[in-house]
Amino acid sequence: MSQEEFQLIKRYFVSDMEDSDVLLGIGDDAAVVNSCGPLAVATDTLVSGIHFPVHMPPDAIGYRSLAVNLSDLSAMGAEPRWCTLALAIPDPQEPWLEAFAAGLLGLAGLHGVSLVGGDLTRGPLTVTVHLLGPISPDRMLTRGGGKVGDDVYVTGSLGDSAAGLELFSKGTHEIGPHHAALIARFLKPMPRVEEGCALSSLASAAIDISDGLLADLGHICEASDCGAVVDVGRVPLSPDLATLFPKEAAQAYALGGGDDYELCFTAAPAQAGAVESAMSAVGTAVQSIGRLVAGGGVICQRDGETFSPSSSGYVHFSS
Amino acid sequence: MSQEEFQLIKRYFVSDMEDSDVLLGIGDDAAVVNSCGPLAVATDTLVSGIHFPVHMPPDAIGYRSLAVNLSDLSAMGAEPRWCTLALAIPDPQEPWLEAFAAGLLGLAGLHGVSLVGGDLTRGPLTVTVHLLGPISPDRMLTRGGGKVGDDVYVTGSLGDSAAGLELFSKGTHEIGPHHAALIARFLKPMPRVEEGCALSSLASAAIDISDGLLADLGHICEASDCGAVVDVGRVPLSPDLATLFPKEAAQAYALGGGDDYELCFTAAPAQAGAVESAMSAVGTAVQSIGRLVAGGGVICQRDGETFSPSSSGYVHFSS
Repeated sequence: MSQEEFQLIKRYFVSDMEDSDVLLGIGDDAAVVNSCGPLAVATDTLVSGIHFPVHMPPDAIGYRSLAVNLSDLSAMGAEPRWCTLALAIPDPQEPWLEAFAAGLLGLAGLHGVSLVGGDLTRGPLTVTVHLLGPISPDRMLTRGGGKVGDDVYVTGSLGDSAAGLELFSKGTHEIGPHHAALIARFLKPMPRVEEGCALSSLASAAIDISDGLLADLGHICEASDCGAVVDVGRVPLSPDLATLFPKEAAQAYALGGGDDYELCFTAAPAQAGAVESAMSAVGTAVQSIGRLVAGGGVICQRDGETFSPSSSGYVHFSS
Repeated sequence: MSQEEFQLIKRYFVSDMEDSDVLLGIGDDAAVVNSCGPLAVATDTLVSGIHFPVHMPPDAIGYRSLAVNLSDLSAMGAEPRWCTLALAIPDPQEPWLEAFAAGLLGLAGLHGVSLVGGDLTRGPLTVTVHLLGPISPDRMLTRGGGKVGDDVYVTGSLGDSAAGLELFSKGTHEIGPHHAALIARFLKPMPRVEEGCALSSLASAAIDISDGLLADLGHICEASDCGAVVDVGRVPLSPDLATLFPKEAAQAYALGGGDDYELCFTAAPAQAGAVESAMSAVGTAVQSIGRLVAGGGVICQRDGETFSPSSSGYVHFSS
């Protein structure tokens, strides 16, 4: 690493957050963290033009690079603690780096996560964050723990991010409060960190919704060796989405659109009351949308009739 | 992640190495490792055309992506245990992935490192490996522990990798055994894993030589708030390098050339015997090349006279 790169890192990425469990932070060959038990380990890469539009504001890129990993750890029921950042950038300009770091470190501070190290290098814009956090092995939420008869739930509401991406990409100038809310949801999705921890003793399986509800619930079905039936009318839509789009278009965003970073999870029917109480305690809406069934794959029903939605997932920005 | 990417990961990156401390491996939202104390955390990114030539064989790219991180952990005196891989690639072709994975997993197997997770995505060829390993906080080797009067050492020999890169890039067809040895040293540098662990109770400061001896020893000097004098005649050269190049050219490679991944470390003079014994026990040459002095910066001497070498470090592949 050149001296110039090291100075940039010191200037923008060393935060003043105190963390007595960081025994050695940014600036040596490696960082040292005071871990004391099993750790969950997640890593996700964002490539410009693939995972986000090239004109996305740098603070939103920094934010998202951590958010996607927070979301992965939440879906395991783990508590996020330490991250590293590997940033390749064609031409490191200080205003860009400052905004990027503010987005990343702002979200890190919200969740008590310390940035302990990383790598800054020249290259096509690519951001890889790696996140570590303690987890209790007997409470970890895998994709494979679902049982036939379990209820299927989602947190919050779905489809806003995909609709927001479309509005952002069109660069529409007729922006009212609903447009702005959807675009904000795309630019700064809120990972469900507290929710994942609260569900770790209640849910049987969990995943975060990054590729779209049907695709991600499909991952739970495959890993849990079962199928799922979803009542599309119960899939929660935000008032913004429901106001701006016709019902079927809004539902298509909610079923197939990615990047909402809500949690999709399953739980035994006997846990229904506890699930509602736990989500109410953290102030988050939760909705039962269906159940796990014998067989494989995800079946959608609307008003009791089976139907095939037009899009079945993986509607990322492009690719 | 698409189904296709997931199948490629399962086919090439799931090794059959047994590791009872991997509680959950590749295939869920995060991996879970059975850590039980302080951990060293390193991450390094390699970008095609910046950190390696675009025509480098894929097994050498896979190998290098882990080697650079093993080298970082070695320079801390930590034992490597678990890694993740974030691979962005324009067009994932199976023969390329197979060779890449063989290079990475082969080196991982040599050092008992498990690949526990990661991310495979489309994008300009960029490889980020993240490596974790247990470390004893009271024996960690930082860059900042050097004291005036300490001896400066290097393991093995220096300059081969920079010379090998030049030969590789020229695509010379007149390849004798010395050429081949230097190119092999560039393509598959051997990180000093056992050496780093063995030195953790003996050295006062350490760094791995990735940017070149003078640059990296300069980092020790800066962090340890002192200077260093290096006797250039004592900097170890391999017989291959010494045979193929005139003495001054060979020394220039050894002082300024990067990517050797030897260790540069300092130790109190009273430790000299223990350092030699420890390196002898792991079968690695070690050479005292100078000492830490008051002041700042690295001074080179040849036959007792101070001189300025033509190149003072950071001779990576390009950039």
